[in-house]
Amino acid sequence: MAIRIAVIGVGKIARDQHLPAIAANPAYELVATVSRHDPELSVPWFADLDDLLASGITVDAVALCTPPQVRYGLAVKALQHKLHVFLEKPPGATLAEVESLRAMADEAGVTLFASWHSRYAAGVEPARAWLAGRSIRDVRIIWREDVRVWHPGQAWIWQAGGLGVFDPGINALSIATHILPRPFFLTEATLEMPSNCQAPIAADLSFTDSAGTPIHMDLDFRQTGPQSWDIIIQTDDGELKLAKGGSVLTLPEGVREDEDREYPELYARFAALVAGGQSDVDIAPLRHVADAFLRGHMRAVEPFIE
Amino acid sequence: MAIRIAVIGVGKIARDQHLPAIAANPAYELVATVSRHDPELSVPWFADLDDLLASGITVDAVALCTPPQVRYGLAVKALQHKLHVFLEKPPGATLAEVESLRAMADEAGVTLFASWHSRYAAGVEPARAWLAGRSIRDVRIIWREDVRVWHPGQAWIWQAGGLGVFDPGINALSIATHILPRPFFLTEATLEMPSNCQAPIAADLSFTDSAGTPIHMDLDFRQTGPQSWDIIIQTDDGELKLAKGGSVLTLPEGVREDEDREYPELYARFAALVAGGQSDVDIAPLRHVADAFLRGHMRAVEPFIE
Repeated sequence: MAIRIAVIGVGKIARDQHLPAIAANPAYELVATVSRHDPELSVPWFADLDDLLASGITVDAVALCTPPQVRYGLAVKALQHKLHVFLEKPPGATLAEVESLRAMADEAGVTLFASWHSRYAAGVEPARAWLAGRSIRDVRIIWREDVRVWHPGQAWIWQAGGLGVFDPGINALSIATHILPRPFFLTEATLEMPSNCQAPIAADLSFTDSAGTPIHMDLDFRQTGPQSWDIIIQTDDGELKLAKGGSVLTLPEGVREDEDREYPELYARFAALVAGGQSDVDIAPLRHVADAFLRGHMRAVEPFIE
Repeated sequence: MAIRIAVIGVGKIARDQHLPAIAANPAYELVATVSRHDPELSVPWFADLDDLLASGITVDAVALCTPPQVRYGLAVKALQHKLHVFLEKPPGATLAEVESLRAMADEAGVTLFASWHSRYAAGVEPARAWLAGRSIRDVRIIWREDVRVWHPGQAWIWQAGGLGVFDPGINALSIATHILPRPFFLTEATLEMPSNCQAPIAADLSFTDSAGTPIHMDLDFRQTGPQSWDIIIQTDDGELKLAKGGSVLTLPEGVREDEDREYPELYARFAALVAGGQSDVDIAPLRHVADAFLRGHMRAVEPFIE
């Protein structure tokens, strides 16, 4: 029987990714949406999760696509009603609230999935496989995009807990934590904070791991012209390059580029977790961001006006 | 046989607490110090941990009392030499580095102890026992002290990773995470950052837990006159008050105040961990601080001049 799912927070990411992935997967039946404004879809719409829960519509699972600052309250309500919960990234606004959700899901006996869509980019698994056992000399992560193009009108991204340039940057961290063979940690960071914002517009981060591998990360939201979502890794066997957010993998033996299947893969994974009665909550990417705020040097820069 | 221990970083906390606690405990033999300047004690002094390790002096354990920003490199070196490691709080400058140390200690088969001295204040265990099973309505944490009195010349506290007012505030968090029956998490925070510093001078934080308990925390480094290190908890059976950093416990049935034994207890605990081949690394207090930096609203305030 299909998982009867409601999508909560019908903004850009829900329309671009979640709704098409759900529609294309027979394991799901979309039964409702919850959003501030009527998204005018073919299923019932509710302004509030409480209204949906009181409606008599049977729901098995919810996908939370709202900004992270309001995700926790919705997740708690869903878990209290024993619904499976799919969290868009980042899984919450704090580490402690995600730990708390994990405990609640375990207690309720339902699935909690903290999704990291970039881990399902086409080049990521082959990159991980290629790196395993190889000796890594150097890692460079370059994530530079134009916030005005990719995040139009997303005021929440600049508010406290909105992560700023780490909203895309955490995608890079979700890949790096997945493909690198050893855990790494921050040694130094500078975060550039526009004087009218509560989140950085750019960041320069240095990490290392227990083998002393230098890992450098360059994040910038002010990139006009060509955009970069690249991870370049030097090994004793040559260079690995993951480009376009993980979808294009270049190895010494050649290039491979596959169709983008990130959200279809995420929804396949969520269905498998529900079927197996399991949860999947990896906090590592968000922990690195928290560490950057905790440890990083904050530098005030000019105000950001969209 | 006594644990042959070296104290690394002979500053205020080492002189006030670590060295007396070690001297008073026959389970330890102080064999050396490592510090930038000669502390002029009766044991050999080295300017660098490498010099101690090359000296031929047999060392079983080190106590790291340096500022958190430089603790990791020293801990790694000690663990590589299979020494047991006692970490003064906070255990590191990032969450990920502490996780990394935990893994290294497990691999090396030695003890890592992330110490939280306030958990050993006289009133803390009785407070925890009294709260267990009681219904908690409200928690207020008030930690207001004069930084000029308690942290003279500690420039590191204002640098990135130095934690600012969370350096004492993390003591309150180490108590709260120990005595409250449910994990809690941040919902809102304002951090006041002096315009010439990289760490907050004051913070106002609201937490809650899965039962919706309101937990409020008020931290201020600008308190002259009477100082406050209080936790006040309202329950269905009346009020619990932990004052003076946990050493004075007031319950509806009366007051109890015992001698301060925080560091002697910590060193007794460390000796027991070493004897039992165990580690004790609880990251929860530092995770709350990271969450406050991640989620909190930063407000610029006037420069701090010591």
